Amino acid sequence: MAIDFTLEPELIELRERTAEFVRSVVLPAEEEMLRGPGAPDDALRRTLQRAAREAGVFAPTVPEDLGGLGLDLRGQSVILDEAGYSLLGPLALHCAAPDEGNMLLLEKVADAAQRDRFLKPLAAGDVRSCFAMTEPAPGAGSDPSQLATAARRTDGGWVLDGRKWFITGADGAAFAIVMARTDAGADTAGGSGSGMEATMFLVPADTPGFRIVRHVPSLDQGFTGGHCEIELDGCEVGDDAVLGAVGKGFAYAQVRLAPARLTHCMRWLGLARHAHDLALSYAAERTAFGSRLGELGMVQQQLADNEIDLAASRALIREAAWTLDQGRSGKHESSVTKTFTAEAVGRIVDRAVQVCGALGISGDLPLSAYLREVRPFRIYDGPSETHRWSIARRALRGIQGASR
Amino acid sequence: MAIDFTLEPELIELRERTAEFVRSVVLPAEEEMLRGPGAPDDALRRTLQRAAREAGVFAPTVPEDLGGLGLDLRGQSVILDEAGYSLLGPLALHCAAPDEGNMLLLEKVADAAQRDRFLKPLAAGDVRSCFAMTEPAPGAGSDPSQLATAARRTDGGWVLDGRKWFITGADGAAFAIVMARTDAGADTAGGSGSGMEATMFLVPADTPGFRIVRHVPSLDQGFTGGHCEIELDGCEVGDDAVLGAVGKGFAYAQVRLAPARLTHCMRWLGLARHAHDLALSYAAERTAFGSRLGELGMVQQQLADNEIDLAASRALIREAAWTLDQGRSGKHESSVTKTFTAEAVGRIVDRAVQVCGALGISGDLPLSAYLREVRPFRIYDGPSETHRWSIARRALRGIQGASR
Amino acid sequence: MAIDFTLEPELIELRERTAEFVRSVVLPAEEEMLRGPGAPDDALRRTLQRAAREAGVFAPTVPEDLGGLGLDLRGQSVILDEAGYSLLGPLALHCAAPDEGNMLLLEKVADAAQRDRFLKPLAAGDVRSCFAMTEPAPGAGSDPSQLATAARRTDGGWVLDGRKWFITGADGAAFAIVMARTDAGADTAGGSGSGMEATMFLVPADTPGFRIVRHVPSLDQGFTGGHCEIELDGCEVGDDAVLGAVGKGFAYAQVRLAPARLTHCMRWLGLARHAHDLALSYAAERTAFGSRLGELGMVQQQLADNEIDLAASRALIREAAWTLDQGRSGKHESSVTKTFTAEAVGRIVDRAVQVCGALGISGDLPLSAYLREVRPFRIYDGPSETHRWSIARRALRGIQGASR
Amino acid sequence: MAIDFTLEPELIELRERTAEFVRSVVLPAEEEMLRGPGAPDDALRRTLQRAAREAGVFAPTVPEDLGGLGLDLRGQSVILDEAGYSLLGPLALHCAAPDEGNMLLLEKVADAAQRDRFLKPLAAGDVRSCFAMTEPAPGAGSDPSQLATAARRTDGGWVLDGRKWFITGADGAAFAIVMARTDAGADTAGGSGSGMEATMFLVPADTPGFRIVRHVPSLDQGFTGGHCEIELDGCEVGDDAVLGAVGKGFAYAQVRLAPARLTHCMRWLGLARHAHDLALSYAAERTAFGSRLGELGMVQQQLADNEIDLAASRALIREAAWTLDQGRSGKHESSVTKTFTAEAVGRIVDRAVQVCGALGISGDLPLSAYLREVRPFRIYDGPSETHRWSIARRALRGIQGASR
Repeated sequence: MAIDFTLEPELIELRERTAEFVRSVVLPAEEEMLRGPGAPDDALRRTLQRAAREAGVFAPTVPEDLGGLGLDLRGQSVILDEAGYSLLGPLALHCAAPDEGNMLLLEKVADAAQRDRFLKPLAAGDVRSCFAMTEPAPGAGSDPSQLATAARRTDGGWVLDGRKWFITGADGAAFAIVMARTDAGADTAGGSGSGMEATMFLVPADTPGFRIVRHVPSLDQGFTGGHCEIELDGCEVGDDAVLGAVGKGFAYAQVRLAPARLTHCMRWLGLARHAHDLALSYAAERTAFGSRLGELGMVQQQLADNEIDLAASRALIREAAWTLDQGRSGKHESSVTKTFTAEAVGRIVDRAVQVCGALGISGDLPLSAYLREVRPFRIYDGPSETHRWSIARRALRGIQGASR
Repeated sequence: MAIDFTLEPELIELRERTAEFVRSVVLPAEEEMLRGPGAPDDALRRTLQRAAREAGVFAPTVPEDLGGLGLDLRGQSVILDEAGYSLLGPLALHCAAPDEGNMLLLEKVADAAQRDRFLKPLAAGDVRSCFAMTEPAPGAGSDPSQLATAARRTDGGWVLDGRKWFITGADGAAFAIVMARTDAGADTAGGSGSGMEATMFLVPADTPGFRIVRHVPSLDQGFTGGHCEIELDGCEVGDDAVLGAVGKGFAYAQVRLAPARLTHCMRWLGLARHAHDLALSYAAERTAFGSRLGELGMVQQQLADNEIDLAASRALIREAAWTLDQGRSGKHESSVTKTFTAEAVGRIVDRAVQVCGALGISGDLPLSAYLREVRPFRIYDGPSETHRWSIARRALRGIQGASR
Repeated sequence: MAIDFTLEPELIELRERTAEFVRSVVLPAEEEMLRGPGAPDDALRRTLQRAAREAGVFAPTVPEDLGGLGLDLRGQSVILDEAGYSLLGPLALHCAAPDEGNMLLLEKVADAAQRDRFLKPLAAGDVRSCFAMTEPAPGAGSDPSQLATAARRTDGGWVLDGRKWFITGADGAAFAIVMARTDAGADTAGGSGSGMEATMFLVPADTPGFRIVRHVPSLDQGFTGGHCEIELDGCEVGDDAVLGAVGKGFAYAQVRLAPARLTHCMRWLGLARHAHDLALSYAAERTAFGSRLGELGMVQQQLADNEIDLAASRALIREAAWTLDQGRSGKHESSVTKTFTAEAVGRIVDRAVQVCGALGISGDLPLSAYLREVRPFRIYDGPSETHRWSIARRALRGIQGASR
Repeated sequence: MAIDFTLEPELIELRERTAEFVRSVVLPAEEEMLRGPGAPDDALRRTLQRAAREAGVFAPTVPEDLGGLGLDLRGQSVILDEAGYSLLGPLALHCAAPDEGNMLLLEKVADAAQRDRFLKPLAAGDVRSCFAMTEPAPGAGSDPSQLATAARRTDGGWVLDGRKWFITGADGAAFAIVMARTDAGADTAGGSGSGMEATMFLVPADTPGFRIVRHVPSLDQGFTGGHCEIELDGCEVGDDAVLGAVGKGFAYAQVRLAPARLTHCMRWLGLARHAHDLALSYAAERTAFGSRLGELGMVQQQLADNEIDLAASRALIREAAWTLDQGRSGKHESSVTKTFTAEAVGRIVDRAVQVCGALGISGDLPLSAYLREVRPFRIYDGPSETHRWSIARRALRGIQGASR
């Protein structure tokens, strides 16, 4: 009933438990992973998730009736930040992309049968999933209206054709949520986008015609199942594969996007916080030119800028989380928050690397791995440019979400 | 009891009333002032404050028993933002610096007699005041421990000697709150600062030996009474002039500083919001190269960055206000917020000028005046460098206020 | 015949002479001006120019046969930087805008009669001039194709109608170079700009129908004759008023623009250098927190960034000056240089203010005046956005001027 | 004899030849390497160097009497930029770090025997070398005075003990240039640095007691021989291992540093230019929101900023190269240039990644590899903070290298 930043005692308790779990269980696993393969496999995922379940910190974003902790976005803003303190934390707690966003979407849109078949095993961590929307040029990238993958109506079903790209977690996923055009123009190549309609389909990975072409090599490496290129070649699915209603694909994408954007911010903010803590520790110990690094003004400036960026990101995230928790769309708030946080997180990790010098770029600290992981966040979930474009247009239309 | 950004209905109502008052009464007065003298005089102040009283928006920060609206800092964060939409709004509502901070300080520290003599007429808007702490080099600037003004004990009183500088509102003020050394070293020139003790004195402006030497010409011009240089030359005051306890000057300065810093942020954020609105209006109407300005990507980028800076500043301010409202010192939060907001406000007004082009630097819009007014905020109330220094040191000591 | 940054001995000698003249004659005059009216009047201009002539530093950009020093742009890059060390230096040396650019234009385009009547007295400093191109919205601003002022053909002459805005130096100028449309569409209001043709006219200030409406109040104040709004209302001129050929106005504007842009950079760079020197001096003397300011890392960072910005601006200016001296258009180089330098100069002066703290924003140093003077440079001579637009388009067309 | 940016015809011809060689031979090899191991091995190095020799572009920095092209630094600024267009270009042309700097140092300091034994085979590309100065904490990092590796005098020789870190190219190098303390305090642990003297030693890699402990994993991967940790454990060398004079180590380090810093700038600038060209090509072709990317303002802004950063870096590099070619120390110029260029290169590659979106972070373009390679340059060869510190101190001492 008034501006309040108080955290409920149970949430504080859960935060402490999560922090302790990340410290004692997840960070050691991260260290081992970074010395080794660089990416977590499903075996590691299962091990960590089992431990999280035992620690009572499993599935913070999942509704209680599906076995999760049922936190709203404000609660998630606290817990996912703790999880994000390690690259593996979100995976361990089962609140990592893309499963976390997919569970949210299915919870809101799936029918009872789809819920049983797809959502329940996903929520339990028995399987993984992927979200297949992005396409290679000239298909759907920043501009979803360039969607080229098409679903053609057949008797009692659909045939999907197209190519998807940078589909996170695809390798090993039990199923994909595939976005495809279902308007009249879908049968013709290179539709203009006007009058475009899209639909989401639930496609099990073993459906004939659904094929993982390759892992797209990427600057970041931390997602289980990689970023894959997928070919849909005469891929037939039944009517029961339609997620929600035909033609509502873009609307459902919006349902998923705003909160998924925020949970990304929460997780990466935690990682940035970790990077900052490493820089603080180093600056407090390492000496140069007769001083502790932390006594040198230019180092202090970077540490202070990190504190400022952390505080501003967190305050924006919490306000946006509250907005969505009120049932409002939060499009403007989540765009503002995502743009700021993605850039702030990049700055923070970059400064942490700089403060730590040669150690910062070495593999002896996880900072250079963090640097690689966070860079793409300025591009996915809407590049900063696209968000700025929509923020400006909204402001010009007089909505001016931020002006009060 | 949980993260909440809801505003109470009465606060929303007061905000609307304030906004309407600023729009209909204050902005026209601002326009006239900017065409004319550039600074508000006391006659204008009285006229505006009378109107504010009639509109029920007078003295939002003043306790109700002193005739004000008695808002806490969270409430102030909403109302002072509206007041700040015009350069003259805070003056009109009687929540401008330095009186606003002085009232807060007197409310907390003054004894009953001082309350009657100094606080009551000040709270009523009958008189103005000033806060005389800053000194010309080599005295107290960013580093208060260089305080050179000294108070020497006499029978039943004190003699003050020294020079103050950039004392806002001094010309026309009924009294000054003067900070002076009262330690043993106060009698010697150029004390080292070690073992320094300072005391605050309430000095009526007509006290012999208290003299306004000159108005220091300054980039900003919007404060009634200017920024003055003051000479204290054998200025005798009684024991009743001591504000609070002898030797507690630095502690009281802290009492004043954190909230005063925040209310500055609130007011300037309102001005930045106005600058942004002017840029939005211009971009929506002016055409160049065959487009509305607002359709050009580089203009959109500036407008979006303004939205982001406004949102982040506001979220930080509200969190810091809440922190102080909880009775916590909020030193870290107010430093973080002040540093970010002072720089953000500068960026916002600068971008607004740039978007408006030649019109932006002309006097046909108030933007160039706003640019001048906000620049010094990166220096007063602690320069950004000093805040970053203390933010970093606090983080290094492990307090890490921002890290959660 | 190879990359060389050597300055000829005569140029070094002239530089030293100029520096000495600025130090001993011009800076004292600047100080007096800033304490007083804020802008130089013609009496001051004449006094200073007389002194410059005596010191042998008058008119560095003017050809020798017109009484100047006849420097090429590389030479100017050295001397105008010295002149610019004071706000009044360019005026004193008679290399200030807009006269400097107008002399260049007349030298290249004027016929013999115009040369005698307009260029000679201008080159001698007997009169001032202005360049009337910019118009208030919706006329020609960043986008010259929105030119609305029209010249209608009559028997033996032209009638000019329109409104000009932000015309620097207009008040007191003996004549204006007026840009007006002369295509068929010129008679109709609000032409589309397609098929637009423009012509330059030499209009004595006492021509009937030529009227200075007002001084446009502006953030900057340092130009003699202010920034004026001008009305052309049935203003009749003869055919001999046409500068160069009818219809070549935009081409001539280009002739003037690239070098005029560079000389602006040179002058403002000098001023930025002065600001930096003031910050260095202050940082070397003022103490805070037990150190000289100059020993504090965050201050050092600002000083170092100033050195870097000065060096990069200067190197870009010299390369662009050389390019133009080779007879090449230098459009790309001058756009790159202008964009970088205008922003660098702003940053440098801003940092100097910040380093000097309260003194920096006070009138006790000229820094706050400098801050006001340099801000508009990011807007005039092409706003940064317009330059970036043309730089990017040129790069995309494969010219890629900067890539080697 | 005057400011001149003309390139001699032979240099232009060599540049074209180099560019053609890089395009046709080196870039294909780079592509293959990036798809494969990520780092070039010695076999690849030999193949490429053979091709370079045949193309007449081998060893541009090596004196002609040693079989190189004998370019001065200005010439190098042109050719190394072309070489740097590919990650493998400098290796192919035998002008990559650390060999390039080591050859320069040996050329200046080695005696005749050392020249025959070490420099000649190195100049011919028959062997590789490394420069062993940096140490893990608490040894010599940014602050060379923390040098902990010690050389103890014995009869007819020296015994070296210590640990080196991040020694580029060590694995596979025929010899190392090892920096060690040779002052009295060298025998005691943790010397204070006062009165410290250092000496350089030429240590063949097969010397007993010289051991490569490990490859330090690093964000960048493009250097043959990696970044290694080296242990010197009772490593005995003769008096003939002393490079130059005993006790002159720091002075020789300076001899190497300023030019080595510049050649780093030249090479990385070429890589940044390549990144920018990739972004230009992508922006010219890819469409989004109904436009080519290159028509969108926010993309244009990034492309223009790249052009500006490229031009400013290049101009600074050329001026600094000229300064050193004049026989001046160029400490200030090379610090300014290194600081600006290292940051500019980082910005350019980062913007190129952003413009290319998902493709930019994928391995389908080399951009993400480039991003990794350039980041450490803000740290090695002096972190930006150390350079800014020395730039500021030099400016404060009144040398003010950049102010003219």
